[in-house]
Amino acid sequence: MSFDLIVRRAHVATAGDVFDADIGITGGRIVALAQSLVAGPATREIDAAGRFVTPGGIDAHCHVDQPMLPPVRMADDFETGTRSAACGGTTTIIPFAAQAKGGSLRAAVTDYHQRAAGKASVDYAFHLIVADPTPQVLQHELPELIAEGCTSFKMYMTYDDLKLADGQILQVLELARREQAMAMIHAENSDAIAFLTERLLAAGKTAPGYHGLSRPAPVEREATHRAITLSELLDVPILIVHVSGGEAIEQIRWARGKGLNIHAETCPQYLFLTQDDLATTGFGGARCVCSPPPRDKANQQVVWDALADGLFTVVSSDHAPFNYDDPNGKRLGGREPPFPYIPNGIPGLETRMPLLFSEGVLTGRLSVQQFVALTATNAAHLYGLYPRKGTLAVGSDADLVIWDTGQPHVIRNEHLHHNVDYTPYEGRELQAWPALTLLRGQVVWDGQHFTGTPGQGQFLRCDRPALARPRTRSGGWRQWLELDA
Amino acid sequence: MSFDLIVRRAHVATAGDVFDADIGITGGRIVALAQSLVAGPATREIDAAGRFVTPGGIDAHCHVDQPMLPPVRMADDFETGTRSAACGGTTTIIPFAAQAKGGSLRAAVTDYHQRAAGKASVDYAFHLIVADPTPQVLQHELPELIAEGCTSFKMYMTYDDLKLADGQILQVLELARREQAMAMIHAENSDAIAFLTERLLAAGKTAPGYHGLSRPAPVEREATHRAITLSELLDVPILIVHVSGGEAIEQIRWARGKGLNIHAETCPQYLFLTQDDLATTGFGGARCVCSPPPRDKANQQVVWDALADGLFTVVSSDHAPFNYDDPNGKRLGGREPPFPYIPNGIPGLETRMPLLFSEGVLTGRLSVQQFVALTATNAAHLYGLYPRKGTLAVGSDADLVIWDTGQPHVIRNEHLHHNVDYTPYEGRELQAWPALTLLRGQVVWDGQHFTGTPGQGQFLRCDRPALARPRTRSGGWRQWLELDA
Amino acid sequence: MSFDLIVRRAHVATAGDVFDADIGITGGRIVALAQSLVAGPATREIDAAGRFVTPGGIDAHCHVDQPMLPPVRMADDFETGTRSAACGGTTTIIPFAAQAKGGSLRAAVTDYHQRAAGKASVDYAFHLIVADPTPQVLQHELPELIAEGCTSFKMYMTYDDLKLADGQILQVLELARREQAMAMIHAENSDAIAFLTERLLAAGKTAPGYHGLSRPAPVEREATHRAITLSELLDVPILIVHVSGGEAIEQIRWARGKGLNIHAETCPQYLFLTQDDLATTGFGGARCVCSPPPRDKANQQVVWDALADGLFTVVSSDHAPFNYDDPNGKRLGGREPPFPYIPNGIPGLETRMPLLFSEGVLTGRLSVQQFVALTATNAAHLYGLYPRKGTLAVGSDADLVIWDTGQPHVIRNEHLHHNVDYTPYEGRELQAWPALTLLRGQVVWDGQHFTGTPGQGQFLRCDRPALARPRTRSGGWRQWLELDA
Amino acid sequence: MSFDLIVRRAHVATAGDVFDADIGITGGRIVALAQSLVAGPATREIDAAGRFVTPGGIDAHCHVDQPMLPPVRMADDFETGTRSAACGGTTTIIPFAAQAKGGSLRAAVTDYHQRAAGKASVDYAFHLIVADPTPQVLQHELPELIAEGCTSFKMYMTYDDLKLADGQILQVLELARREQAMAMIHAENSDAIAFLTERLLAAGKTAPGYHGLSRPAPVEREATHRAITLSELLDVPILIVHVSGGEAIEQIRWARGKGLNIHAETCPQYLFLTQDDLATTGFGGARCVCSPPPRDKANQQVVWDALADGLFTVVSSDHAPFNYDDPNGKRLGGREPPFPYIPNGIPGLETRMPLLFSEGVLTGRLSVQQFVALTATNAAHLYGLYPRKGTLAVGSDADLVIWDTGQPHVIRNEHLHHNVDYTPYEGRELQAWPALTLLRGQVVWDGQHFTGTPGQGQFLRCDRPALARPRTRSGGWRQWLELDA
Repeated sequence: MSFDLIVRRAHVATAGDVFDADIGITGGRIVALAQSLVAGPATREIDAAGRFVTPGGIDAHCHVDQPMLPPVRMADDFETGTRSAACGGTTTIIPFAAQAKGGSLRAAVTDYHQRAAGKASVDYAFHLIVADPTPQVLQHELPELIAEGCTSFKMYMTYDDLKLADGQILQVLELARREQAMAMIHAENSDAIAFLTERLLAAGKTAPGYHGLSRPAPVEREATHRAITLSELLDVPILIVHVSGGEAIEQIRWARGKGLNIHAETCPQYLFLTQDDLATTGFGGARCVCSPPPRDKANQQVVWDALADGLFTVVSSDHAPFNYDDPNGKRLGGREPPFPYIPNGIPGLETRMPLLFSEGVLTGRLSVQQFVALTATNAAHLYGLYPRKGTLAVGSDADLVIWDTGQPHVIRNEHLHHNVDYTPYEGRELQAWPALTLLRGQVVWDGQHFTGTPGQGQFLRCDRPALARPRTRSGGWRQWLELDA
Repeated sequence: MSFDLIVRRAHVATAGDVFDADIGITGGRIVALAQSLVAGPATREIDAAGRFVTPGGIDAHCHVDQPMLPPVRMADDFETGTRSAACGGTTTIIPFAAQAKGGSLRAAVTDYHQRAAGKASVDYAFHLIVADPTPQVLQHELPELIAEGCTSFKMYMTYDDLKLADGQILQVLELARREQAMAMIHAENSDAIAFLTERLLAAGKTAPGYHGLSRPAPVEREATHRAITLSELLDVPILIVHVSGGEAIEQIRWARGKGLNIHAETCPQYLFLTQDDLATTGFGGARCVCSPPPRDKANQQVVWDALADGLFTVVSSDHAPFNYDDPNGKRLGGREPPFPYIPNGIPGLETRMPLLFSEGVLTGRLSVQQFVALTATNAAHLYGLYPRKGTLAVGSDADLVIWDTGQPHVIRNEHLHHNVDYTPYEGRELQAWPALTLLRGQVVWDGQHFTGTPGQGQFLRCDRPALARPRTRSGGWRQWLELDA
Repeated sequence: MSFDLIVRRAHVATAGDVFDADIGITGGRIVALAQSLVAGPATREIDAAGRFVTPGGIDAHCHVDQPMLPPVRMADDFETGTRSAACGGTTTIIPFAAQAKGGSLRAAVTDYHQRAAGKASVDYAFHLIVADPTPQVLQHELPELIAEGCTSFKMYMTYDDLKLADGQILQVLELARREQAMAMIHAENSDAIAFLTERLLAAGKTAPGYHGLSRPAPVEREATHRAITLSELLDVPILIVHVSGGEAIEQIRWARGKGLNIHAETCPQYLFLTQDDLATTGFGGARCVCSPPPRDKANQQVVWDALADGLFTVVSSDHAPFNYDDPNGKRLGGREPPFPYIPNGIPGLETRMPLLFSEGVLTGRLSVQQFVALTATNAAHLYGLYPRKGTLAVGSDADLVIWDTGQPHVIRNEHLHHNVDYTPYEGRELQAWPALTLLRGQVVWDGQHFTGTPGQGQFLRCDRPALARPRTRSGGWRQWLELDA
Repeated sequence: MSFDLIVRRAHVATAGDVFDADIGITGGRIVALAQSLVAGPATREIDAAGRFVTPGGIDAHCHVDQPMLPPVRMADDFETGTRSAACGGTTTIIPFAAQAKGGSLRAAVTDYHQRAAGKASVDYAFHLIVADPTPQVLQHELPELIAEGCTSFKMYMTYDDLKLADGQILQVLELARREQAMAMIHAENSDAIAFLTERLLAAGKTAPGYHGLSRPAPVEREATHRAITLSELLDVPILIVHVSGGEAIEQIRWARGKGLNIHAETCPQYLFLTQDDLATTGFGGARCVCSPPPRDKANQQVVWDALADGLFTVVSSDHAPFNYDDPNGKRLGGREPPFPYIPNGIPGLETRMPLLFSEGVLTGRLSVQQFVALTATNAAHLYGLYPRKGTLAVGSDADLVIWDTGQPHVIRNEHLHHNVDYTPYEGRELQAWPALTLLRGQVVWDGQHFTGTPGQGQFLRCDRPALARPRTRSGGWRQWLELDA
């Protein structure tokens, strides 16, 4: 065999293994893992020098250049978003092509392809957001888009412009079951948030810290229980996105104990931020306004425990880039607008992998295999990208990160590559950062500079995920219907 | 002291005690309980002969002459309903004055007073049904009606013409907290029922037995969890009505474990009927169509266990009288209409007390004190009728039942006194039946005949129930709002 | 009727009711409750003046003049203990006749009768402590003693001189099932305590505060789970004594959810003391050394919630009187002995009722009916004293308390009537104290002075408690044995 | 690179991945995984032909030639046991060097080495059984044996000749924490089993089916809860061995929800047998007598669900080989001895992997990666054999199985290679069987014949397992001890 590239002396970690090997790469794919590979005349070589080499991250929950209600504007488009991803060790992103209520899902996908075209420097797939499950969408657009490789979609139980009623969710879950697509659910009780928000505003409680009070943990827990029930009725797996703490986790664990097939995602903000970050004096807490909101220290520990325990399938960033000092961003509607005005979301594409490697792996909270599973492999399984993406195995894309773990790295927004004017992790010292990121064998981050090229990233057609299949076991909703069958 | 009436040699049972005494009654009230009372010249006497004497029942959940969407018609009006109650040992009923969507709650109450006027032969109070919490209702009608003695109301999470959205429920619960009124919630997920019903009909599953499949236990459990959460957010007690089995009970027990103040009601149909009664061949199962539907034997046991354990506050009939062989009743829309057409509800005013006394007390599953608490005293506490109603104590109304427990009583609809053409318990043999019912010292059932008089029953103004107050302990919803207070 | 005594204008509270009545007493028993009673020529009268009148308390868990391993000595004998009880509103105590390992249970009872003879000024029954279930005890002594009116017994899972192995507990529970006696279990894991104690001592951690660390909550929770399992195997009700907090409560609630028949007791020390009281500087914490130890504030709240919720059957004092400044008491073995030397137990006979009335009823945490049930009625049911004791009903003993709730009462040990040199509640201000205690119609506490007489108290033969019967429902342990039966 | 052996066209499955590759093997180790490898002149080749290739199994719980109380004798020694393993796809076994009470652990290990010497045809490590934790054992033998590569040990909570008291378990767990060894616990309540057994025998219930009734699920659940508590007190991970059903699983899930680090193992008998297999007529059920006993169908499903959900770390055989028709085996003490005489245990070394591959992977209940993790990789992590054993990665031993999945394989004991006269799975048809087993590059099973050599198997020194370390998070037992530290 001849190789385009050999990564030598890699301390390779996958979701299952850790081993020392040379990695042989040809045509952008891994073709050999061996104790020692022989270079050909045209073979480039990179010396990993015994450092950890992990699969390039898959950020399976992020928002990039997603159309917002004017004048709100996302700070990152595909160019800056994927650049930032690459520099943080992420080589695949799965942002959302979002249907508008009253609009076409197909049109949203077409538009989103155009937004990505020529800009992405890492690979990307699309989740769909189903905001209006009309017969047209259910009977035509969704089945066709799934067939074309958009095999996962998110539904919202909150946000006026996005939320679905329970009956609509059931319709979409029924389709997910039939089409073997993966359903993701944002679980917060919309009415309760609206009610509490109104009461807070009426009481003059408008500072960013009240954002957290407007959607307390029971609001998330209730919707989580409800989503689980809808899934149970149809016997179809779902993923609960961005689980923030112990109350929702309790429900998921309870569901597992009943044999239900519930996947769960959490995000760095629930491991590294707390409600105190929201409630800093003045308007500064707006930087950390996201939903669900970060909880308290005790909940952080519960999330860490659940990560270690295997409850979570995936850690994503939920990157949602809004500038802090920007009337189209966090300062929407004024210098210090009441919290309901503040666009929800925080940036995190570039920091997700280093945060979790440093504070998860190097502290011993997680094994490096768990890290790989949570940041890359499981997402590939969940969303039909495996085995092309998410691992370092023969035949897989040569997407990888070499980790520098020898020295402190202090997070500074000025060093990050997104287009957002802040990071919520400013000043935090980590013990790990990518020394090099490879996308299909090409260096896109060399430890100092972004070396990728807009347009280099490819659109990925996702398979129908095996994990979207009901567990072999039961008849699912037919048990309600086929009494005498 | 002189007495109008002495009930001699009573084996008195209250929610707290069992003792042997003579009961002295004057002016319709109990004025003395003593080992031996001296009759005056004008004193009537009744010899209880050592038999059990319990407080007259309070049926705190029943439907009588409630306006329905035409052509559906309730078979019982206040005359036949209260007659049936009296003959079954129930001396107070609390049916529902139901607001129509778009209508006035005040008007519903006025109308309901007229329906009751001159007809009732036992005492009665009114629950309200809040189907449309407009500002007018929230700011004026409800506070006024509460002040006038209608201090409890039910909200529905299902039924298109009745159901409230979560945000509306929160508004009404907020009022309940402020006004110290008792909120009752019918907890089933409306959307899920509609979805499953549609799928069943599409599959040609139209027989009455499919009614049960259209609202399986998770549908009730989910709404129960949701109702608990809404209550938790505002720290206001609620009552979950007609809990049918283990899944909902699990949620209630879980809530109790969190220190939440959740009351629960069950009904005889969840102790004595099962889904098999719904699924009998032909259309016969329509007789047992009610919501939530009866579950299976295992769930019956869980309900019995929860009764014995103290989880339930009250056992009501949910009497909802529709004739079986009637186009305005169960045969609405045809000889054997599809199950969604069948009016929901079963008769039970007259059988509630005997069923529970026979199968609960005499079998040893419940103590007689528990029987009294569940059928009378707790309802009086829940709904602001205590101490006038619900017990046999000095000062209370002389509403009581003397029990005949010496011989078998077979339930036959021809012997019952409601106006419904069937009972779901036809042919069941009980070991107990009221030998005599006294309403404020007047015999309304002598063991053979109804001896009451329409119009004899009085309207009861309810106090604001102490049980509607949040537990002394926490700040409730203000904890969300008063961060810096 | 003629009366020896009439208590006029009583605001009577029972486990089920609250009503205003005159109480007619003849021959030491209540013979009439009525709006107005007519005094005869020889009738004494007491004017309750509308104040609360509750049943005299039953302290169902207390230690009085119990033989200890020398030189340890209980400070209270039947004279001082019952005097203290009377002054605190308790008219029945149930201390323990304790078998010594190797000794006879019968002999222990005989001895204990002698200790009580001529000394008690309130009535008393005996629990047994089974420390050595020999065949003699199981086949002869226990059945005979039960027949003679000692129908309840405690087993210890800890303390070297008392503890039983699981197999022994099963043998005794089997007997309890057969004889319909009530089994009480002290649930802490003995081995774990010994292990932790040894490690603490080895680390030089000898101060009283370490007592709490030597028996942390999981130690109690584990034994609670184990006791529940042993009860479950034989389908026999048990009572878990002195439950201290949330971990054990969780297990009890879980057991209830499985339909198991588990009773539970808590004590004032778990409602009013915390581990901080144990850990005060110097040796002072020794005053609060008891087992299980008081937990933290959060656990206190969980215990209060569980009281309000109905989880607990009874609140007892676990009065165990050891002087603080006494080498036969807390200073056993030195001025400031290491914590394992300190005799376990705190005094509480006199303060139990006022603490719970003031901080439970008057604050609104408990209804007065709950107070009565928890301090008197339920104990009477649990231990076969009902209806003679535990309530204010026709035919019951005229044991009652009139409550003074109009002014603050500061607890001072100098004002208490036990023989212990401290109270753990020194200086606490209450809003309630007994204004008068009546034992079978005799005033034993007049609000200022003890007015009873040693020897006035009678020994009570207990019935076999109905609550000791398995729930009507299942075959119990025979389900394991009678596979083909 | 040159290779001793190339396995071509392997459809390789690891705990993390599935990929197609050639496997290059040199010196008994995997040195390359590549799309295509070049053979050298001395390279042997095996064509996997696209079939599944998984790591050779690790049977982490099996009993081989373990000294028994005479006359009981295990049917398999290291020669027959490892032969059977090899033919069933297992290339590493970890049987137990068992201390006798009163005996030396060191001596047990020395003896066990002699029993293995020259006989094993697959590799093997030793767990220890600690039956007598004397100071000598705790201070000298265990630390030394751990240092020498026996880094895991089992403790029994039942069996008279093996069981430890809770205090002894705590002492051993403390050592496990200090030495970073993995503690395994057999969790059943000894006393309860003895009690129930005695009652069954007294009732004449002696048939093998009563074995199950003598140790019902609560007996296992209780001990599981207790083991979890002991682990919690010291904050040290443990493994609960052979979990049989839902009751124990509930406890493990509950522990996980509290953040505790509890590993769990199950066995094929809990997935494929039920209590009905024990209760077959006559003495036949003796073939399935093992402890804990198989439960019912519903429990089987719970175990399957928990496997799919990730609750279990490992599936082992608990191979315990006793002949059925043998007075030194199942017929100990007579033709049809009472069940307590019957040696506990069933054979399973050879059937474990095929059962789980066929009924787990091929039915879709488990992914093939889960299969690998449960049968090989996780055991290697748990017991310090990773990365040498348990995976197919560069640098690992070339232990692998090629699976034949194209045709039915009916289990017949005559075809198995153990020395036991029956298999509990006789007649069961599987869809998978090893077509070839490789031990360090040597064929030991060719699909038709055992081709290994006694003595070929090597003793494996285990590392201190990373999984034996407490989770990074808490102070563990020191929190009880270091109050003021």
